[in-house]
Amino acid sequence: MARRTGKYTLTMENSPSVIGFAAVASKKESEGPMARYIDILNDDSTFGEKTWEKAESRMQKDAVNKALDKCSMAASQLDCIFAGDLLNQCISSNYGLRELGVPFVGLYGACSTMAESLALASLFVDCSMAQHAAAVTSSHFCSAERQFRFPLEYGGQRPPTAQWTVTGAGAAVLSKASMPPYVKAVCLGTIEDLGITDLNNMGAAMAPAAHSTLTKFFADTNTNQNNYDLIVTGDLGAIGTELLYGLMRESGYDISTVHNDCGLMIYDRDRQDVHAGGSGCGCSAVVLCSYILQSLREGTLNNVLFMATGALMSPTSVQQGESIPGIAHLVHISSQP
Amino acid sequence: MARRTGKYTLTMENSPSVIGFAAVASKKESEGPMARYIDILNDDSTFGEKTWEKAESRMQKDAVNKALDKCSMAASQLDCIFAGDLLNQCISSNYGLRELGVPFVGLYGACSTMAESLALASLFVDCSMAQHAAAVTSSHFCSAERQFRFPLEYGGQRPPTAQWTVTGAGAAVLSKASMPPYVKAVCLGTIEDLGITDLNNMGAAMAPAAHSTLTKFFADTNTNQNNYDLIVTGDLGAIGTELLYGLMRESGYDISTVHNDCGLMIYDRDRQDVHAGGSGCGCSAVVLCSYILQSLREGTLNNVLFMATGALMSPTSVQQGESIPGIAHLVHISSQP
Repeated sequence: MARRTGKYTLTMENSPSVIGFAAVASKKESEGPMARYIDILNDDSTFGEKTWEKAESRMQKDAVNKALDKCSMAASQLDCIFAGDLLNQCISSNYGLRELGVPFVGLYGACSTMAESLALASLFVDCSMAQHAAAVTSSHFCSAERQFRFPLEYGGQRPPTAQWTVTGAGAAVLSKASMPPYVKAVCLGTIEDLGITDLNNMGAAMAPAAHSTLTKFFADTNTNQNNYDLIVTGDLGAIGTELLYGLMRESGYDISTVHNDCGLMIYDRDRQDVHAGGSGCGCSAVVLCSYILQSLREGTLNNVLFMATGALMSPTSVQQGESIPGIAHLVHISSQP
Repeated sequence: MARRTGKYTLTMENSPSVIGFAAVASKKESEGPMARYIDILNDDSTFGEKTWEKAESRMQKDAVNKALDKCSMAASQLDCIFAGDLLNQCISSNYGLRELGVPFVGLYGACSTMAESLALASLFVDCSMAQHAAAVTSSHFCSAERQFRFPLEYGGQRPPTAQWTVTGAGAAVLSKASMPPYVKAVCLGTIEDLGITDLNNMGAAMAPAAHSTLTKFFADTNTNQNNYDLIVTGDLGAIGTELLYGLMRESGYDISTVHNDCGLMIYDRDRQDVHAGGSGCGCSAVVLCSYILQSLREGTLNNVLFMATGALMSPTSVQQGESIPGIAHLVHISSQP
């Protein structure tokens, strides 16, 4: 069973395998560099549903079913599913997964949810609390915009620091079966708040959390950036990434040569008008459950630190003058057991 | 480490102890039958804060600190905290606990959150993933009313099936140290949806989930109501309780003599105008972390099934014509290891 390494890190004993994974996304993502790795691309962002919230639920359901398909499993073989999303009361997950009949652990980690759910699913499998467990999350540009910012019809101007919420979902199935990729360790993050209050600059609010979790993990495991071929954050975007580099340098680590950010990978910022990059729970979920896990399976990537960050505010808390707390959870995934 | 019993139940190997617990509540709760067991009662439901949301955050913080105090621990000794609440993006937990510096696992289980967080904290301790872990949740009448129903100033009429959201928080600290009460097993629930659409009849929406989890647990453990001296649901209220009795009878179990509901225990319905009873994450949290855990510690209760239920809808999903899915998580707590 997983054992504590240092103060914050949990190292797997049996390195659970990600035996199935799938990503679902829509038109804008189909025009970006990740498109060829994504399992289901639908140009119609309603996915045939009547509302954007239902469309988002549908993506979660499709992602889980596709991930199960790809490892020839039925939902009934899952012992547990860990899921959450950005919508109020996490309705994408609740409605998207209600028909599965699988014990359900609802999470709220904002855009850190893919790492949070993957971490918990891995721990459950490693400790034999589940034979098979799934992790899933999603976001939708249209449901997120109207909930967090303005109705789309309002046509608000977006500042250059703003990011573009990914319309997509990702799901991963964890198992004791031995095949690459393997989850080696997880590091659950603490809430960090350096007082950022700009709702259009989420990357800046989340960078301190990424710094906190990554330095804790390096210290716990006595490793540094040289031990990994990719350190990938969820959706810091261009501005948050620069801030993270600065914070890491102050702690004595130069991660710039080995780091990338899912928000910078999913769109082509030269051709696509996404300002500071992609964001949302679906951003890291789609990139992880397509390109990253596929590359780890094929061995073109070998040691990846997947660290999704979340901004833990709400429109209400921001209106009340509160700053934006961030959190980052880290999962170490390897091509070797 | 916890092992799977039957298809749905996880039985603890080492029966983690609830070494500290505390409840915080306000004026209406101070006039109810649980008052003498509650640690902190404040007649001012703002708890000295400027908004109701901040007041709710404050209650979570106070509950955790009081629970830690009562077992002479510092927050820095916690390896992990599991928390969530009803507010959009779970801001009560995010803001209430951000200063603790403890690895944070954000949950969304609606009113099932006290059982969900207690289950995960217990599993983490049982599997040695944490030496000490905490579980916490809250609700606030004023923040819930304006988010889920109407602004208080509107003065809306409440139908007889409506329940009264408890203003309160509860926290529990889990540890390997051996002292009563002990967590013996948990059963994580599946999402159940029988098509209820009435936002003012949450008990009816949640009763099928309670029935589902309880019958699964009975089957897995080969026990029935006679093995327990209290089977306590979270906030089914008067109507949901009657529905649960009916559903359980159809499955061959008469739980009516051994069952109670935190929503019926926290207020005196003859004297207090709460219609069908109390509700909210804070309802089961306060009753568990005051009367129930205290009685288990003293041995006046010996075998309790604590099963909090959650209605997994949002105002948006209801406006879109969706039914209300429910979930119930169960934790078996005993005075004996």
